[in-house]
Amino acid sequence: MGGNITKEVGQRKRDEREELINEMEKQLGLAEDHPDDAVYTHTSPEEIVANLKSRKNGWTAERVMIAFIRSACAAHRKTNCLTEILFAEALEEARKLDKDYAATGIADGPFWGLPSSFKDTYNIKGVDTSLGCSPHCFKPTEKLEDEGGLVQLFRQGGGIPFCKTNIPQTLLAFECRNPVFGPTTNPYTSARTCGGSSGGEAALIALNGSPMGWGSDIGGSLRIPASYSGVCGLKPVKGRWPTKGQRSATPGFEGIQGIVGPMGRNVDDLAFGARNMLTLAQESTARINGEQLIHMPWKEVELPKKLRVGYFTEDNCIKASPACVRAVEESVAALRKAGHEVVRFEPPDVSEALKVFAGLTSADGYKTLLGNIGPDPMEPSMRLVTIGSRIPRWLAWFAHWLLDSVLKDHMFASTFATSRPKSVEEFWKYTRRRDVYANAFRKLVWEDKKFDMILCPVQAVPAVEHGRTNFLSPLCIGTVLYNVVDSTVGVIPVTHVDRERDATPPDYLEGSQGSWLLEKRVYEGGPEKAAYDAEKMHGLPVGVQIVGQAWEEEKVLAIMKVVEELVAYEP
Amino acid sequence: MGGNITKEVGQRKRDEREELINEMEKQLGLAEDHPDDAVYTHTSPEEIVANLKSRKNGWTAERVMIAFIRSACAAHRKTNCLTEILFAEALEEARKLDKDYAATGIADGPFWGLPSSFKDTYNIKGVDTSLGCSPHCFKPTEKLEDEGGLVQLFRQGGGIPFCKTNIPQTLLAFECRNPVFGPTTNPYTSARTCGGSSGGEAALIALNGSPMGWGSDIGGSLRIPASYSGVCGLKPVKGRWPTKGQRSATPGFEGIQGIVGPMGRNVDDLAFGARNMLTLAQESTARINGEQLIHMPWKEVELPKKLRVGYFTEDNCIKASPACVRAVEESVAALRKAGHEVVRFEPPDVSEALKVFAGLTSADGYKTLLGNIGPDPMEPSMRLVTIGSRIPRWLAWFAHWLLDSVLKDHMFASTFATSRPKSVEEFWKYTRRRDVYANAFRKLVWEDKKFDMILCPVQAVPAVEHGRTNFLSPLCIGTVLYNVVDSTVGVIPVTHVDRERDATPPDYLEGSQGSWLLEKRVYEGGPEKAAYDAEKMHGLPVGVQIVGQAWEEEKVLAIMKVVEELVAYEP
Repeated sequence: MGGNITKEVGQRKRDEREELINEMEKQLGLAEDHPDDAVYTHTSPEEIVANLKSRKNGWTAERVMIAFIRSACAAHRKTNCLTEILFAEALEEARKLDKDYAATGIADGPFWGLPSSFKDTYNIKGVDTSLGCSPHCFKPTEKLEDEGGLVQLFRQGGGIPFCKTNIPQTLLAFECRNPVFGPTTNPYTSARTCGGSSGGEAALIALNGSPMGWGSDIGGSLRIPASYSGVCGLKPVKGRWPTKGQRSATPGFEGIQGIVGPMGRNVDDLAFGARNMLTLAQESTARINGEQLIHMPWKEVELPKKLRVGYFTEDNCIKASPACVRAVEESVAALRKAGHEVVRFEPPDVSEALKVFAGLTSADGYKTLLGNIGPDPMEPSMRLVTIGSRIPRWLAWFAHWLLDSVLKDHMFASTFATSRPKSVEEFWKYTRRRDVYANAFRKLVWEDKKFDMILCPVQAVPAVEHGRTNFLSPLCIGTVLYNVVDSTVGVIPVTHVDRERDATPPDYLEGSQGSWLLEKRVYEGGPEKAAYDAEKMHGLPVGVQIVGQAWEEEKVLAIMKVVEELVAYEP
Repeated sequence: MGGNITKEVGQRKRDEREELINEMEKQLGLAEDHPDDAVYTHTSPEEIVANLKSRKNGWTAERVMIAFIRSACAAHRKTNCLTEILFAEALEEARKLDKDYAATGIADGPFWGLPSSFKDTYNIKGVDTSLGCSPHCFKPTEKLEDEGGLVQLFRQGGGIPFCKTNIPQTLLAFECRNPVFGPTTNPYTSARTCGGSSGGEAALIALNGSPMGWGSDIGGSLRIPASYSGVCGLKPVKGRWPTKGQRSATPGFEGIQGIVGPMGRNVDDLAFGARNMLTLAQESTARINGEQLIHMPWKEVELPKKLRVGYFTEDNCIKASPACVRAVEESVAALRKAGHEVVRFEPPDVSEALKVFAGLTSADGYKTLLGNIGPDPMEPSMRLVTIGSRIPRWLAWFAHWLLDSVLKDHMFASTFATSRPKSVEEFWKYTRRRDVYANAFRKLVWEDKKFDMILCPVQAVPAVEHGRTNFLSPLCIGTVLYNVVDSTVGVIPVTHVDRERDATPPDYLEGSQGSWLLEKRVYEGGPEKAAYDAEKMHGLPVGVQIVGQAWEEEKVLAIMKVVEELVAYEP
C-alpha cells in the first residue's frame, strides 16, 4: 500500500520533471548540437557577470541562461542530477533582465544575470522541497519570504536560480539516491555514486551544467560529493551564513549544526560566491527573517609567507586508500617545495568523534529523520546507520557483544553501541562529550601546534560503486570529524586514481588500528568484493580537505587557492 | 541521613569561610574603623588601575586590596554574600605586584592590581565550585588551566580574583539561597532577597565590596540581582566570551545558552570590564583551551544622534507593578525629552517564550540539574519549577485540568503543561519552537520596526521578600524572554520605589491579560500576602532592561550610558 503511494507520487514527480526538461530540449535544442555554448558554460561565474554587465559582444543574460539550461539538461540525461526544474521561469527572468538593462542601463548586484543551481533542501518559490520523500511532494513553497536565505540573497544580488539538485533520502547518507527521483550517478562513470548529500549539485557542476551551486553539510554532505565528483566545496561553520528557509530532515536538532556553503569548479568560483553572498548577508538592508547572523563582513586576508601546515593520512578508524594517501602526500610535497612548513601530526582519538556524531544524531531513535519518509521504502544506504535504533535492545546488545568479544572489532563495536535511542539526560551527556572532544582537538591544533591549516583525506576512498555504502556508512568519519570539531573546511580535487601507483599492496592492512570489519569490506575479496580497487577506479578524481578555524572563510579559501595552484589539478 | 551529610558538609564549609574572614578581620581590622578606605572603594575600577600604574600618592595594589577585603568582609557580615575566600592569596599577590613594579617598573595589563569578585560558578584554583551543593564541596579546582575563562583572562590582564560569591542551589532560581552557604540578603534590607543566581555578586558590588564582578545568566541570573540590588549588569550572547571553566548545573544543555558577563556600579565600569576582557580574549596569544570564540575585536561605536527606541511595560503574563512601569516610563520621558524617537510596541506572545524556556529546561525531568544536589534538601524556590517533573503524569494532567478548566488560568495552565520530562524527539520540537519564536521576535523588532534598542521592565516587581519566589518563579519571564530570543541585554537602576507614587490602585488588575493566579499572589491580600507592596518596598531600587542584538556589546553599553545619564539615578 505504502509502496504504491511512493511509486505513484514518484512517477508523477518524475513525469513532471521529464515534461519540463523535454519541453526545454524541444524549444532550445540539445547541448550536443550547440558547441558554441562552451563559450558560456566554460566561463567562470565572476566573468559571466562581468561580461553581462559590460555588454560584451554576444553576451546577454538570455544567451547565458540558454547555454546553461542546455548543459544542465545534458548533465541530467547523463547523471539524473536534477529534482526541480525552473528553466522556463529562469529564461523569462533572464529576458526581463536584458530588457530592463537595455531600457534603464542598470545592472545591479554581484550576481546579476547569473544562473545558479541549489541543492533540493533550499526552498524556492513554486516548487517542492521534497528531499526525495513522497510525503513532502506537491507541497510547493508559496511565498518568496519562505525561500532559502541564500536563495533570497542570490536573487537580491541579481542572480537567477534555475534548478534544484538531487539528494539522498533524508540527507543522512552519501549515496545520492531516493525513491522519488532515483539515483544520481557519478559524472565520471555511471557505475558509481556522485556522493551525497549535495550529490546532484556536484554532478551538475562537474559537467558544467551550472556556473556554481549551493550545497549543505552536516557530516560531509558537501565535501564527499565534491571529492567523489571532482569539484570544489566550502563547508563553513554556522554563524555568518543564513540557513533559514531550508528543509532540514531533523528540525530542532542542533547537536551537530548543519550549514550551507558554495560549490564550484575551482577555488576562485567559491571565493566569488562566498565573498558576494556574505557581503549581501551583512548589508544593513538585508532582510533575513529574524535569523541571527554574526556581523563579520568579508575581509580579504594576507596569508603568512610561510604557512604552518599540519597533516595526517591515518585516522585509525578506516585506513585510507593509496589514492587518498597520495593525494595528501602530493599536496604536502608541493607545499614543502614552495617553502611552507609541513608537519605530520596525530589527531586525537578520531573514533570518539564518530561515536559522538552517531550518539547525537541517533538520540531520538531517528524518529524525526524517518518521520520524513512516511510510506516510502527505506533506502539500503540508511540501513546500517539506523539499525541500532530499529532493532530490539537485546539484539543490539547481542550484536555489540558479537562485534566486541567474538569478532574483536572494538572500534566498530563501540561506535555501534552509541547509535541508539537515548533519554534527554543522556543526549546532553553526548553534547558534553562533543565539547570535550572538540575543545581538546582545537586546543591541540590551533593553540599548541599553532597550525594555519590542517591537510588530510576527505574519506578513505574515492567514489564507490552504487550500493557500496550500505555497510560502509562509517566511511564518513573523514568528514564527520570536522562537523564535530566545528571547523571551516574546503575540499579541492588534487589528483586522479592511478591503476598502478594506487594499487593496494597485499600487506596494506598490516598493523592498521582501524576497524577490521570495515577495512575488510574496503580492501579485501578482490575487485568484486572490495570497495576500493585502483584498477576499476582508474581516472576518478581524488580530493583533500583543507581545514581552518570557525568563521575564517577568507583564510581557508586563500589557503585552498595556494594548494590548488601548487597541485595544478586537471579535471 | 542525607540531611545530616548536608548539615555536616555545610557546617564545615561555613566554618572554613568564617575562619578565613575572621583571620582577615583580625589582621586588617574592620571597615568601620577605616573610613579612609572609601577613597579606594569608591573609585572606579578603571581609575584604580590608572592610579596604581601612575603610582599616585597613597596608591598601591596592597592598599587597594586591603580596602576591598575589609569592605567585602563588611558586606558579607551584612548580607552573607561570599562563598569562597581568597583574601590571603590575593593580598600576597598584591604585595608581589607592588614589589615587582618597584623592581622592574613594569605594570602590564588592563586589570593590573585590580581586585575582582567572581560568581561561585567560576572555577578558581585552590577553592571549590560547589554551587551550594554538598556533593561538590571539598573538591577544589587543582590546575590554573581549569580556571574559568574569564578568571584566566583577568589574571592575564594583571587582575587579582579575591573572592567568590553566593548563588541559589543549582542556579535555576532567583532567590540566592542554598543549604551550604545559606541565604544572601538584599543590600537594602535583610528581609528581602538580593535576587539570583548572581546574587552574592550583586549584593557585594552594591555595598562597594568589590570594584566590579563577573556573573552569568541563563534566564535572568545576572539581570534580576542587578535590578533587585541596584547595580548594573550586561548579559551578552554566547560567542565572544569564553565560558569554559565554569560549572554549569546542566552540562551539555544548550537549548538555552548560558553566558557570562560583567556586573558593576555603573555603565562605565561594565564597559571598562567588557572592553578589556574582550580585547584580552581576542589577542592572538590568548589560550582559551580550545573554546571557539568569534573573532570580533572590541570596536567603539558611534550611536545615531536620534535613537529609535521601542518600549513596552506589559508582557501579558504578569502585570508589571507601578514602580517597574514607572521606571520604564521615566526612562521613556527622558529619552523623548533628549530628542530620541520612542515608540510603544507589543511584543509577540511573550508567554510562548516562557513555555519554550520551561519546555527546554525541564526536558530531562531536571535529572541533570537535581543530580547536583545529591542528599541535600531541595530549596523551596525550586519546588514550583520542578514540580511538573516530579509528580506522576496523572497528577500533572489533573493539575493542568484544574488550572485550565476550573481555575481558568489558561496561561498558567499551558506553561505548567510544558514543564515535564520529554523524549529527545520532543526536545528537538521545542528547540524548533524556540527558533520560530526568536526569529519572529527579532524580525519584528530589528527588521520591521528597525529599533536601535528595546526598553522594558526587568521583572514585574522589585526585590521580593525571602520565600516569595517559591510560588512565583514565572516572574522570571521578564528576563527569560531575552534568553529565548538571544539578545544582548543591559540592566541599569533608574529609580527607587516610592510608597505614594507606586501604590497599587484597587482596580490595578482590571483587564489584565496575564495569569490571574500569579497576579493575585503578586498584588492581592494586603501587605502580608501580596508580593508587591509599595509601602514595604519604599526605597528599593528599580531597574530597566536595555535590549540590543547579539554580539552588539559596544552598542548596548553605549545606549545604556545614554539612558544612565538621562535618568541620573542616585543609589
